[in-house]
Amino acid sequence: MAVKKMGGLADVIAGQTAISTVGKDGKGLTYRGYSIEDLARFGTFEETAYLLLYGKLPNDMELQQYKKKLSGLRQLPSGLLAILERLPGSTHPMDILRTGFSALSAFEPEDDVRSQQEIADRLLASCASMLLYWHHFHKYGTRIETETGSESIAGHFLHLLHGRQPSKLHEKALDVSLILYAEHEFNASTFAARVTASTLSDIYSAVTTGIGTLRGPLHGGANEAAMELIERFDCPDDAEQGIMRMLANKQLIMGFGHRVYSVSDPRSDIIKSWSRTLSADAGVTKLYDLSERIEQVMLREKKLFANLDFYSASAYRLMGIPTSLFTPIFVISRTSGWAAHIIEQRAGNRLIRPNADYTGPELLAWPPIDRRS
Amino acid sequence: MAVKKMGGLADVIAGQTAISTVGKDGKGLTYRGYSIEDLARFGTFEETAYLLLYGKLPNDMELQQYKKKLSGLRQLPSGLLAILERLPGSTHPMDILRTGFSALSAFEPEDDVRSQQEIADRLLASCASMLLYWHHFHKYGTRIETETGSESIAGHFLHLLHGRQPSKLHEKALDVSLILYAEHEFNASTFAARVTASTLSDIYSAVTTGIGTLRGPLHGGANEAAMELIERFDCPDDAEQGIMRMLANKQLIMGFGHRVYSVSDPRSDIIKSWSRTLSADAGVTKLYDLSERIEQVMLREKKLFANLDFYSASAYRLMGIPTSLFTPIFVISRTSGWAAHIIEQRAGNRLIRPNADYTGPELLAWPPIDRRS
Ligand SMILES: CC(C)(COP(=O)(O)OP(=O)(O)OC[C@H]1O[C@@H](n2cnc3c(N)ncnc32)[C@H](O)[C@@H]1OP(=O)(O)O)[C@@H](O)C(=O)NCCC(=O)NCCS
Ligand SMILES: CC(C)(COP(=O)(O)OP(=O)(O)OC[C@H]1O[C@@H](n2cnc3c(N)ncnc32)[C@H](O)[C@@H]1OP(=O)(O)O)[C@@H](O)C(=O)NCCC(=O)NCCS
Repeated sequence: MAVKKMGGLADVIAGQTAISTVGKDGKGLTYRGYSIEDLARFGTFEETAYLLLYGKLPNDMELQQYKKKLSGLRQLPSGLLAILERLPGSTHPMDILRTGFSALSAFEPEDDVRSQQEIADRLLASCASMLLYWHHFHKYGTRIETETGSESIAGHFLHLLHGRQPSKLHEKALDVSLILYAEHEFNASTFAARVTASTLSDIYSAVTTGIGTLRGPLHGGANEAAMELIERFDCPDDAEQGIMRMLANKQLIMGFGHRVYSVSDPRSDIIKSWSRTLSADAGVTKLYDLSERIEQVMLREKKLFANLDFYSASAYRLMGIPTSLFTPIFVISRTSGWAAHIIEQRAGNRLIRPNADYTGPELLAWPPIDRRS
Repeated sequence: MAVKKMGGLADVIAGQTAISTVGKDGKGLTYRGYSIEDLARFGTFEETAYLLLYGKLPNDMELQQYKKKLSGLRQLPSGLLAILERLPGSTHPMDILRTGFSALSAFEPEDDVRSQQEIADRLLASCASMLLYWHHFHKYGTRIETETGSESIAGHFLHLLHGRQPSKLHEKALDVSLILYAEHEFNASTFAARVTASTLSDIYSAVTTGIGTLRGPLHGGANEAAMELIERFDCPDDAEQGIMRMLANKQLIMGFGHRVYSVSDPRSDIIKSWSRTLSADAGVTKLYDLSERIEQVMLREKKLFANLDFYSASAYRLMGIPTSLFTPIFVISRTSGWAAHIIEQRAGNRLIRPNADYTGPELLAWPPIDRRS
């Protein structure tokens, strides 16, 4: 085993959480005690969000009420729609969501009237509306209605995107993806959101921090980068050669590796099987075959396993989702985890403020301006 | 001495920096080797920003060019002005800056054409324009011109705020305040911005994180909270009684205490003397007298010293600045420090992703929905 690199707070325990465990035995993942496998097999995203935000799995009545509540929170203030219209069509959709959530705070600030959970519910419920209102306005010049008959957030997203009710298979596949992306302990975006919350700033600020942090290619941005990589290749042999060249040039292969998992990413197996199912359903296996070969090469050459982002790419493409909306889907889902962590941070708050190791110059005398080089 | 509380990454070294030292011997502060006392006495904010961003004090020609460059970057895209007009007048100005900087990325995204420093310069130069365009539009219904003849950022801010050239004294006092607020090692907002940058996200995302984190009352928001506190009292005796009551009720007194300084905050002495000068100039000493008494009580009762935020409050009020613009001024200044840290983080990047101590339930079996309570 290689010597561990320093820095990046690797192996540093930054605080306590009761929300999830990541990487027990190098591979496990649970949300409030429930395994990711059970959540993905038996649960829905709405159940998962409820579990994260309210601390328990909802019973039948609670779940029905919760879904109804979320469906009722999909419309955005007209002032916000006007702002979305003003943001250029060339903008990265992650910048739209970061700006849109930040702006929503101006119309619906955090106050004592709504609980933290209610604000989180609002963000979860309206995120797809925000994204796809902007998308359709700039792509097609239409002002879409952001209500749909879909009962689930996954269905709402696909319905708004494609302008029609999605197939049951697509709705279920996206729902599972949202479950897998919902929560992941002290990952960079969640940890950054907790730092923001630790100054007792508002929930919108903390979620905005989460979005901006997720955007980077070493984190949520990896699903878009993985798609761009896979699509470059024509056939598995071509992919193998390409990856070998990239590894020889010491390039990062997006969608592989993980800070905490050492054996495997349990979410990858789940999304991989959905990617296979979607491929079979579409009768198009090219992307899946390319992906599998890349996975084999990475395992063989670097002992690196695919993380959640890798097979999410082909799964999303098979649902007809444009690449630039991949990381925004991660936002829709992870907002539940961020909010759960913000609430937990506030409940036992202490300002998160580390120290630094100073490597700069010793005290310098002030040089008058006419003596400077 | 009390036993140190756990958590909040207190005393944990999260990385290296060559930008500043904080709290050497419990009290010192240097930016790239220069003491805060020298910077405040001999320097200007533009020199300080240049030092932080470009790594050296500018010579005469560089400084002239830099000031000219910054003056040329004060106008905002019309699309952004339209967005500012859409954000309600009731919005907290920190939410305006967080949203405005986030939105600016849509008009002027980070790309290979401009260097990181150039984007930082743009943000520094246009921050006051953004804030005060919105302020005047909603307060007075006017669309102000965001160019002024002022050579300095401090002068530009005061000129836009009051609609006239500020006095030399006010311009200098605000300039010093900007120097003092510019940089402070791994404080919460800077650290959060570095976490954002560590995913290789863009500079706007990282600065947006900084703003949202600074907003909280345990961090930048403390200067506004300190003003609200001081203004509650009629005379020093009244203040003394009020503070004693608050301490008896275990309330936090905003503008006191610090995570890293143990002896004193060197910036406080400097801004205190400016607050005294401004009071004398105005012939109004009430706020200063109230502040001094509160400072004495806190030292006597809790051995806690005033931090930079405490005397900044009275100094700002004496320059006619509304309380809700106090923390935004901190943004104008700290943008230089944030950007310097983002650049430094990128230069030796590793993803910042700590671990957590899991305190939640062990693995739970999945309960079918009809068996849940
Ligand atoms: C996730 C990630 C940021 C973890 O970072 P980390 O814990 O700091 O890992 P390190 O950068 O220390 O990686 C250890 C070694 O494996 C290599 N490595 C890690 N991930 C790699 C990848 N995806 N492709 C190629 N090499 C990789 C590193 O280059 C490093 O090699 P070195 O020791 O020769 O320098 C990293 O694996 C990565 O960049 N992956 C690609 C982006 C991605 O998929 N992100 C989504 C994560 S869910
Ligand atoms: C700056 C600050 C967040 C540092 O936090 P920290 O390092 O986590 O300090 P702690 O919360 O551990 O404080 C240690 C003790 O001093 C007390 N204390 C600290 N600052 C205090 C203040 N401003 N007023 C009253 N008591 C204070 C704490 O209540 C705590 O007492 P306890 O041990 O009886 O619980 C904290 O001093 C504070 O909240 N100050 C007020 C806000 C402020 O001015 N922020 C701007 C900082 S530049």
